[in-house]
Amino acid sequence: MLHSTEPLDRFYSVIPAGGIGSRLWPLSRADAPKFLHDLTGSGQTLLRATWDRLAPLSGEQRIMVVTGRAHRAAVEEQLPELADCNVVLESEPRESTAAIGLAAAILEKREPGVIIGSFAADHVIKGAAQFRHAVAEAVTAADAGYIVTIGIQPTEPAVGFGYIKTAGTLNIDGAASALSVDSFVEKPDMSTAQDYLASGNYFWNAGMFIARADRLLEEIGAAEPALLAGLLELAEAWDTPRRGAVVDRVWPRLKKIAIDYSVAEPVAARGKLAVIPGQFDWDDVGDFASIAKIHANGRKRDLAILGEGARVLADSSSGIVVSHTGRMIALIGVEDIVVVDTPDALLITTSANAQKVKAVVDALKLSGSTDVL
Amino acid sequence: MLHSTEPLDRFYSVIPAGGIGSRLWPLSRADAPKFLHDLTGSGQTLLRATWDRLAPLSGEQRIMVVTGRAHRAAVEEQLPELADCNVVLESEPRESTAAIGLAAAILEKREPGVIIGSFAADHVIKGAAQFRHAVAEAVTAADAGYIVTIGIQPTEPAVGFGYIKTAGTLNIDGAASALSVDSFVEKPDMSTAQDYLASGNYFWNAGMFIARADRLLEEIGAAEPALLAGLLELAEAWDTPRRGAVVDRVWPRLKKIAIDYSVAEPVAARGKLAVIPGQFDWDDVGDFASIAKIHANGRKRDLAILGEGARVLADSSSGIVVSHTGRMIALIGVEDIVVVDTPDALLITTSANAQKVKAVVDALKLSGSTDVL
Repeated sequence: MLHSTEPLDRFYSVIPAGGIGSRLWPLSRADAPKFLHDLTGSGQTLLRATWDRLAPLSGEQRIMVVTGRAHRAAVEEQLPELADCNVVLESEPRESTAAIGLAAAILEKREPGVIIGSFAADHVIKGAAQFRHAVAEAVTAADAGYIVTIGIQPTEPAVGFGYIKTAGTLNIDGAASALSVDSFVEKPDMSTAQDYLASGNYFWNAGMFIARADRLLEEIGAAEPALLAGLLELAEAWDTPRRGAVVDRVWPRLKKIAIDYSVAEPVAARGKLAVIPGQFDWDDVGDFASIAKIHANGRKRDLAILGEGARVLADSSSGIVVSHTGRMIALIGVEDIVVVDTPDALLITTSANAQKVKAVVDALKLSGSTDVL
Repeated sequence: MLHSTEPLDRFYSVIPAGGIGSRLWPLSRADAPKFLHDLTGSGQTLLRATWDRLAPLSGEQRIMVVTGRAHRAAVEEQLPELADCNVVLESEPRESTAAIGLAAAILEKREPGVIIGSFAADHVIKGAAQFRHAVAEAVTAADAGYIVTIGIQPTEPAVGFGYIKTAGTLNIDGAASALSVDSFVEKPDMSTAQDYLASGNYFWNAGMFIARADRLLEEIGAAEPALLAGLLELAEAWDTPRRGAVVDRVWPRLKKIAIDYSVAEPVAARGKLAVIPGQFDWDDVGDFASIAKIHANGRKRDLAILGEGARVLADSSSGIVVSHTGRMIALIGVEDIVVVDTPDALLITTSANAQKVKAVVDALKLSGSTDVL
């Protein structure tokens, strides 16, 4: 079955398409979030690539997208196959437990016993066969009652990702590689990351969660009973004329909490969280250094250039240029530089400082320069 | 007499306003050359500041500007006091011997015995009293028959300037500090520049030449007789209705040669070139590193910002930002950076690479990207 191209049994994909991607400012904006950009030079937005990756696993009619009202038109333009009933619009952001939990509650009501898999709209994955392999095992483990995540086999001591610490094999039928999760750990320093890599017991946390919808809701309820009650009330009304009124009343009051804290960590602590090691290439494309790295793979030039009609003149400079203006950009002797040129804002930094871009966004907010956010 | 504010006797200022300033691209352009920019933040263009510096020395009615036809309107806008008869327009650039020699020939014909001083339109000078002092001595030495330059007392081992090597005092009445020039030397490397500074016998070559017009023409004739003949023919016709026809015929055939090579070096070799040590601050503002240095003086911040309405958000970054677009420019962790942001072109380099900007202009010419030149 592993090399089948048939959809996986009872499986439903959920794509939360929410985050702006502040560390990718000024490319990513409130009105042009990260998932609507082509960051790999493939010609596809990250959202569209995510759809194309998931469609063979669940079927096109079984992909639900949770996104903000402001992004509805852009999402539907990217995903013309997306069924109306599978668009869940947030009136305001309420974090991942509410977003994924609402999808789970709606789908469980429509189709009891459904298994959902939640995958970020703005990550990059290479290796379709390996991805399918991992998701298939995850679905099997989920069917056995586990909350399941897919951990990425580290290829370097990355300091930009969170890690999953494993605790031993689980011996699940049909999910031979499933391991028990000991705990989730935050982004490490370089020395710790090197220890993690050497130990072989740590995986990158890609934020992928696969579970029976009923089990996921059960775990949300165990940690956040009021939040679960709200989700069930929303789901009850969702496919009825009462949806709008209930959303207006209930959604804005839901607790904002990441699913990592509400579900993943407590469940791991009780030994009920499984991880499937993913053997595919994965990147969260979290900052411009990451984009530069993706573009350097398989190319010999040191300077990555993104943007249609980019005009770049560079000597020995290295790094990445993102050009959205068509202006002539001349670089002389700048190493590991990051240049992002947009009509109203220009960012210049280095790969080593790429993580700090979020601080610029925060500073711009504080200084009231919201016109460029 | 040194502290007088009266014009110097028989003195005429000549301002060749020609060079584009390629190392200041994309700020300086063919249609917006360096001398039309305010590079010091004073609110004045370099040309206007040059005028204001010279007017007290020669009188406003005795300043001649030699410039390209394309810049006539801009020059006249900057210098409303400039007399029509003192505008010398070049139909095409023919280098400094032709430009300064034509001014000398015209002025000598109008006023035999005149002493001219030629000063670049795009340098920065601080210290009006010291400047006047030096020019006054230079005029005295010129009256005694010398070709005179003003050398700048070095304050650091600069590698971006040419140097003047001195050979001893000249004992000229009224020009006590005049020294004989041994030779002109090209831009040195750092070690040589340190030796020059330590020896005390070297001055920076600021390209200032003061001479009796008849003596200057005589020296041009000694080195380039055909060029002198052309200049005299032009001068003969200049203030007559024949000017246009003679210019069209003669000017394009004049030899292109810098006055440093045609006059200064041969005259120095014969011991007839005098240098007056200038005690004022001088900079040729030749590249963006030089502009950054000028702006750092007297200011405590490390990042110089030029441009009206500039919006710059920077952390510990240092260097210079020139903003002509009003866009938000965010800098994170870039040291000694040079950013020049114009509507159609963006330059990013470092202070250490600032001299290489000319190579970009050359490359843009070669690649046919003349729209941004």
